[in-house]
Amino acid sequence: MGDSESTECTVGFEPIGLKVKVPTGTTLLEAAHRAGIYLSSICGGDGYCGKCKVIVNEGQFHSRPSPLLTTEESRENTVLACQTKVLSDMTVTVPNFHSLETSRVLMDIDAHIFSRLTGKTRETLFEYSPLVQKLCVVMSPPTVVDHTADHERLYAAIRKQVDVPIMQTGFRVLQKLSKVLREDNYKAAVTIGQRGGTAEVIEVEPGRRCKTNYAVAVDVGTTTVVAHLIDLTTGKTIDTEATYNSQMNFGEDYIRRIIYAEQTNSFDQLQDRLVHDVNDLIMTMAVRQRIDLQDITAATCAGNTAMIHFLLNLDPTRIRREPYVASAAFVPPIRAAEAGIQINKRGLLYCLPAVAAYIGSDIVAGVLTTGIYTKEKLSIFVDIGTNGEIVLGNKDWLICASSSAGPAFEGSGIKCGMRAGSGAIESLNIINGVEIQFKTIGGSHPIGICGSGLLDTLSELFVNAIIDRTGRLKAADDPRLTEGKDGLQFQLVEPQNGHHEIAITQADINNLIRSKAGVFAAIRILMNSTQTKLDDIDTIYIAGGFGNFLNVQRAVTIGMLLDVPPARLQFVGNTSIAGAKTSLCSQKALETAERIAESMTYFDLMGNPDYMDEFIKAKFLPHTDLSLFPSAIELRPQA
Amino acid sequence: MGDSESTECTVGFEPIGLKVKVPTGTTLLEAAHRAGIYLSSICGGDGYCGKCKVIVNEGQFHSRPSPLLTTEESRENTVLACQTKVLSDMTVTVPNFHSLETSRVLMDIDAHIFSRLTGKTRETLFEYSPLVQKLCVVMSPPTVVDHTADHERLYAAIRKQVDVPIMQTGFRVLQKLSKVLREDNYKAAVTIGQRGGTAEVIEVEPGRRCKTNYAVAVDVGTTTVVAHLIDLTTGKTIDTEATYNSQMNFGEDYIRRIIYAEQTNSFDQLQDRLVHDVNDLIMTMAVRQRIDLQDITAATCAGNTAMIHFLLNLDPTRIRREPYVASAAFVPPIRAAEAGIQINKRGLLYCLPAVAAYIGSDIVAGVLTTGIYTKEKLSIFVDIGTNGEIVLGNKDWLICASSSAGPAFEGSGIKCGMRAGSGAIESLNIINGVEIQFKTIGGSHPIGICGSGLLDTLSELFVNAIIDRTGRLKAADDPRLTEGKDGLQFQLVEPQNGHHEIAITQADINNLIRSKAGVFAAIRILMNSTQTKLDDIDTIYIAGGFGNFLNVQRAVTIGMLLDVPPARLQFVGNTSIAGAKTSLCSQKALETAERIAESMTYFDLMGNPDYMDEFIKAKFLPHTDLSLFPSAIELRPQA
Repeated sequence: MGDSESTECTVGFEPIGLKVKVPTGTTLLEAAHRAGIYLSSICGGDGYCGKCKVIVNEGQFHSRPSPLLTTEESRENTVLACQTKVLSDMTVTVPNFHSLETSRVLMDIDAHIFSRLTGKTRETLFEYSPLVQKLCVVMSPPTVVDHTADHERLYAAIRKQVDVPIMQTGFRVLQKLSKVLREDNYKAAVTIGQRGGTAEVIEVEPGRRCKTNYAVAVDVGTTTVVAHLIDLTTGKTIDTEATYNSQMNFGEDYIRRIIYAEQTNSFDQLQDRLVHDVNDLIMTMAVRQRIDLQDITAATCAGNTAMIHFLLNLDPTRIRREPYVASAAFVPPIRAAEAGIQINKRGLLYCLPAVAAYIGSDIVAGVLTTGIYTKEKLSIFVDIGTNGEIVLGNKDWLICASSSAGPAFEGSGIKCGMRAGSGAIESLNIINGVEIQFKTIGGSHPIGICGSGLLDTLSELFVNAIIDRTGRLKAADDPRLTEGKDGLQFQLVEPQNGHHEIAITQADINNLIRSKAGVFAAIRILMNSTQTKLDDIDTIYIAGGFGNFLNVQRAVTIGMLLDVPPARLQFVGNTSIAGAKTSLCSQKALETAERIAESMTYFDLMGNPDYMDEFIKAKFLPHTDLSLFPSAIELRPQA
Repeated sequence: MGDSESTECTVGFEPIGLKVKVPTGTTLLEAAHRAGIYLSSICGGDGYCGKCKVIVNEGQFHSRPSPLLTTEESRENTVLACQTKVLSDMTVTVPNFHSLETSRVLMDIDAHIFSRLTGKTRETLFEYSPLVQKLCVVMSPPTVVDHTADHERLYAAIRKQVDVPIMQTGFRVLQKLSKVLREDNYKAAVTIGQRGGTAEVIEVEPGRRCKTNYAVAVDVGTTTVVAHLIDLTTGKTIDTEATYNSQMNFGEDYIRRIIYAEQTNSFDQLQDRLVHDVNDLIMTMAVRQRIDLQDITAATCAGNTAMIHFLLNLDPTRIRREPYVASAAFVPPIRAAEAGIQINKRGLLYCLPAVAAYIGSDIVAGVLTTGIYTKEKLSIFVDIGTNGEIVLGNKDWLICASSSAGPAFEGSGIKCGMRAGSGAIESLNIINGVEIQFKTIGGSHPIGICGSGLLDTLSELFVNAIIDRTGRLKAADDPRLTEGKDGLQFQLVEPQNGHHEIAITQADINNLIRSKAGVFAAIRILMNSTQTKLDDIDTIYIAGGFGNFLNVQRAVTIGMLLDVPPARLQFVGNTSIAGAKTSLCSQKALETAERIAESMTYFDLMGNPDYMDEFIKAKFLPHTDLSLFPSAIELRPQA
């Protein structure tokens, strides 16, 4: 059947009840996109991740055969949405493992950690001086002996309050200035934004509006977009919101998304999705807090380099090609409206600076927030996301690398993996090698395992000798060890009341070990290259969206992090949003972020011959060299 | 007949042949506006200037009686267009004294004087460093050991060539940067504009376009708008163009236009007109020179404060109300497109700074161009336009004032007055008190008298004792002295071959004397207030659109300017456009203009009790105090 036929078919999605009209020949994945329905898809529609399964209830279709579908699935009309073309009106069922739930829990802990961090930050590091501030300016009205023009009168009054050597005024502001100043007899509320060395008057209102000024800080993650709404008159976070990055339909990792955008020339579409997500968050908070969008005058964003490129529709294609170059690491402040962000029409958008194509502003935000750039002693900062980025350094130097750890600890590429949302196993213990205890986010029946749960699982399987030091499931007589359709697996939760079983497969374990090995090898390489010894390390900070609770010690047990005393391990949650807020609240902080980004040395692991050696050694649990992990050895009976 | 009837009438204008449909009840002046026809109108439609005369050929109308129309005119169906309502389809004849001819002659001399001045300026005062410059930037392409992002790579390369501490990049430029840089393998043409202390990358193109960069300098006059097209790679003026300010239909002076705009809330319309004029000039030159508008990357404007407000649609209403305050004297650089100026979409518009509501950037441009702010000795700068602005000072101080001289020397309010266009008497001599010799612009039969001709006429009438020291036409037996329909008048040119006579009336003479007295009184007040003596004055510069040739000495004879030796009098033509170009070609010049504007002291003549005294004394020819004008006394036989 040709793609070129122009007849349209209606596709209904159950149980959601959404319908969409698409041309005959459209794939079900594309149809779902158009209907605004999220289907998991790691490979971006290439048919090899097997994530985008849906069940066809009715209608004609053409589906390419796939080894990722079992015979039973095929018999039940389960298909890969990306490999299935619509040939008639259809209805399909979207299994609930696709369902997108906004993980409020993750948000809450972020907000909590964040407020703690910024409380500290504000007291000790940066004084409060937001990037955009509103001043109450009182001028003497003109007289016959003082006929200074309104514009210069305003400047003079502003300069009495703040030190702004170079000033600019937006044109539309200038046009209405004369009228606005007279409305409250030369008492005015003036919104001034810092714009790369100059201060721009972005809004002038009558004096009575002096107390209304808000901003948003945004963490633009590959998986999750998080936003905080901040009252700029106090610097307090008054609301938080998060959503999944709806670019996910185009690939779970950003390299896939870049490829997709290139192949289909859909950069605009990818930007639209992301901007729409950010606008949704802002709108949701604004409505909840009864705030006019016009009163939100600034936004700061942190994220990996690719996400910032997508957000601004900068060309990201060179990020994935040697020699891996960004369009811009330092994005100048722009008018948020230019990027489609719906706040005050003249409000400013600040993107935190990045270091390189694979060390984004999220990592700079982490360094800023943890303060490792201020310390005498060395620290390590590890951010576990789609990649694992590592920073080592102190007040004198900073070196960083990006391990291609993969998104296993975000639940991607793991049979029962999921994000830290409701129903996710977030912690797990195996008692006496037998009884499995776990806790789910929200306390409901488990539907999958999130990052912290996966870390626990790997650690507990290892400590309880269910897997050996290479991660291989041992051929014991444990009935939970079975050959499933995805190969050898260990059942963690039995199927029950219509719920599927929760299991971890040999492939999952190998995947998780590759991730942890990538991170540890990167740490080793950075230490070796700087001749840093374990005892030189004061604190290891670990950031990422693991979930509510991360048992950091278990990251040591599996050999992901260095074996330092527990007091020197610190889980810091989402430091990307924290850095975005810190920068928003302090011009000095943003300047510091710029200095951090400038001074960080990027270490290219792929170009380093020792990286593979270190990676191979780290693919053991905890490591080939057991002397590196005395605490892990204590926990585990000798195999 | 009610205005509210919604039927439409067609009004045809002869001999132009244009037709327009208007609602019944519309005035002929408004109908002419809509048809795009210029009718002279000093009063802006109030019916008291009597300039907007047209002849009704056919059709019904209602016209208010006016003392400004003779019985003969009324019989011939001559009406005041502003006082005449259309009641049916009509045809009217527009007398040719309304006809708008672009005064190329004036342009040519401007261009000439200008090129002379800037030649001097460039050699002696400012080095060539235009506000917007195009650099040819060659970068090393990224490698595995140098993966600096494109944006920072570009900045680094720019900074090797020019000293720009603070840089900004336009968002749209950033979006295409990656692609453009690769087009010529990291050789690029970068357009950088100075923007109030920062340098903005406003355009990036492939390297082969390094040599294409243009700009326009504009003098936004109340009467005439003049533009020069400049090749920014050389700094040379390659074309000039001028047009009448088409706001003239709304009043010949800017106070009238402000009143009109306020009464009819038509600020947008007035801006449109002016912006349209500027765009017309730019387009005409661009087409003639085969230049793409996108390659014009900057525009500078000078003009009186009101004109700059109209151009940018800043609120001008406070300019005419005590205490006479502008919205902005220092307008920050903006994107030209924001004001509707059609050059490169990201091109910049710079307005030269003004001093006050009645001392605009045209006067600052004059000070800049004449260089009086650099001199040890004192100079006077006089600009004769709609008002007469005077500046006195040297390198240490500058004081300025605006005399409400009125537009008499622009030909307004003078029976046979006209602008310096083809057919205007530009110089006039009376030989032996009898024979009148004159020269017209273009050499054709005279149709009126322009500024320089009026100055000559007044001077020659005085020197030949045809008028007395109060300006009164003497009741001699000269047949040229008659009682015309406009009162007592002196015929300069007889009617001939269907051409009207050219005469000067007693009212005209009084008008011209009031103008010259206003200027001289202002000079005296500024001198008195600074205790400046005649001998302290080194040079008097006189600027304005007088015409091709100004016999400056005659401005002394009538007592408009101080009686200094001829060598110390200098006619400098249109210094407004000259200053606009000088600023365009040198960042230092624009900064200097800003320092000039900041340092000039505005002297309010209206608030000075001595001004009226000085004015009354100066209403004599040349003055009550003859000892001030020894050279004038020599010329004239004692009365």
